[in-house]
Amino acid sequence: MHILVTNDDGVQAPGLLALAQAMRPLGKVTVFAPDKNWSASGHVKTLDRPLRVRETTLADGSPAFTSDGAPSDCVALPLLGFVEKVDMVVSGVNPYSNIGHDVTYSGTVTAAMEAVITGVPGIAFSLASQDNHSPNTPTDYSCAAHVARVVTEKAIHNRLTEGVVLNVNIPYVSIEELKGYMITRQGLRVYRDALDKRIDPRGKPYYWIGGEAPTGISEEGTDVGALMAGYVSITPLQLDLTNYKAMDVLKNWEF
Amino acid sequence: MHILVTNDDGVQAPGLLALAQAMRPLGKVTVFAPDKNWSASGHVKTLDRPLRVRETTLADGSPAFTSDGAPSDCVALPLLGFVEKVDMVVSGVNPYSNIGHDVTYSGTVTAAMEAVITGVPGIAFSLASQDNHSPNTPTDYSCAAHVARVVTEKAIHNRLTEGVVLNVNIPYVSIEELKGYMITRQGLRVYRDALDKRIDPRGKPYYWIGGEAPTGISEEGTDVGALMAGYVSITPLQLDLTNYKAMDVLKNWEF
Repeated sequence: MHILVTNDDGVQAPGLLALAQAMRPLGKVTVFAPDKNWSASGHVKTLDRPLRVRETTLADGSPAFTSDGAPSDCVALPLLGFVEKVDMVVSGVNPYSNIGHDVTYSGTVTAAMEAVITGVPGIAFSLASQDNHSPNTPTDYSCAAHVARVVTEKAIHNRLTEGVVLNVNIPYVSIEELKGYMITRQGLRVYRDALDKRIDPRGKPYYWIGGEAPTGISEEGTDVGALMAGYVSITPLQLDLTNYKAMDVLKNWEF
Repeated sequence: MHILVTNDDGVQAPGLLALAQAMRPLGKVTVFAPDKNWSASGHVKTLDRPLRVRETTLADGSPAFTSDGAPSDCVALPLLGFVEKVDMVVSGVNPYSNIGHDVTYSGTVTAAMEAVITGVPGIAFSLASQDNHSPNTPTDYSCAAHVARVVTEKAIHNRLTEGVVLNVNIPYVSIEELKGYMITRQGLRVYRDALDKRIDPRGKPYYWIGGEAPTGISEEGTDVGALMAGYVSITPLQLDLTNYKAMDVLKNWEF
């Protein structure tokens, strides 16, 4: 079992190290991650410029590859043959949850999508540390690493269905406090973005996408609801975005 | 009816001008597009830097806004209040088709997704000019513009269902040659990417994501199939990516 570990926060992010270490008992691990932070970067395939690859080491001294490509490029290059055949791609651990509509923006999730498009199972791991964590203390990835190992082991053992991306979100609690695991559907995010217009020192306007952090509608059975109840949320995602119900409606539009 | 027109190829792209002109008979048109080409850039929300907005003019002399943000930012800023209330967002016309798995990579499609997430109907228009068009002649957008007006008019008249993104792909033919309109599901893209390793003048390796252009599996009822048969393909997309069938499988994994 050859497992590729990547993320969207960059090769030196502590969540990547935690994930790489969690995967080692499960097989051979290759780390290949971006050389910078690509959060909220979406699904990118870099076709207009060549990519560089550099060897580096993680904080525990283990080897890793890093590239100036986007997270999806860091999946595409290894899967196109930069390294030997990959059997599973895991992405993360993202320090913040990726739930609801976050999935199409998220570099963590789209890296796992890239794997599945290429025919390799992909799992994205995100930790809801924004919920109860002071930014002044380092994020504790021990529960997330435990969950990542458990879920990946199950995915290997049960042969994760082809074409399915697993989007795993972990509450920010200790292993002992974890309530369990829930299979969920994608919930609803509530974005509270606001336009924040400011004037620069030269008197010209510039704009931040500001506002408050997104919340979610805590419905039972959703990723949002599972996290809020203290459970790991496992949402199987598909790459077919067709709205089949809407097809019937559109057929009455009479073109 | 206030229609926002955007794209992922940049404010000076001829496909944007064609789309803006096609929308004018349907209502008030505001053009707000990126100041550079963002093809294959995915769904980006720019939160780590402020955005600039500049007034410019299209090739026909009509006014437009342009920003250094991504295509989704060019939807977010107007919808967050940079301009008056928007009723419909149209994106394109992209010079190449966006079918199958292209939809999560495509800036054209994710701009329309951004609108729908914010609660405004969104339609993406792409022209399959790669199929039978010499790169030495300018792309003819007349059929695409005609189709964009017909589809947008139907969407306004029939009140496009909330939460649905329309992904419209137009064959590269004349209006007379057009076979008609098909409501389709997302088909299968076949990517033929290959790793292309080269050595720079300093003796160091660099990598292109190379290979041949993607093809598609031409199944009846899909976007791929409709285009190949000479029809406009209209695929309703949803933002819920949950694979409901896989949920039942995962529930047997016994966590």
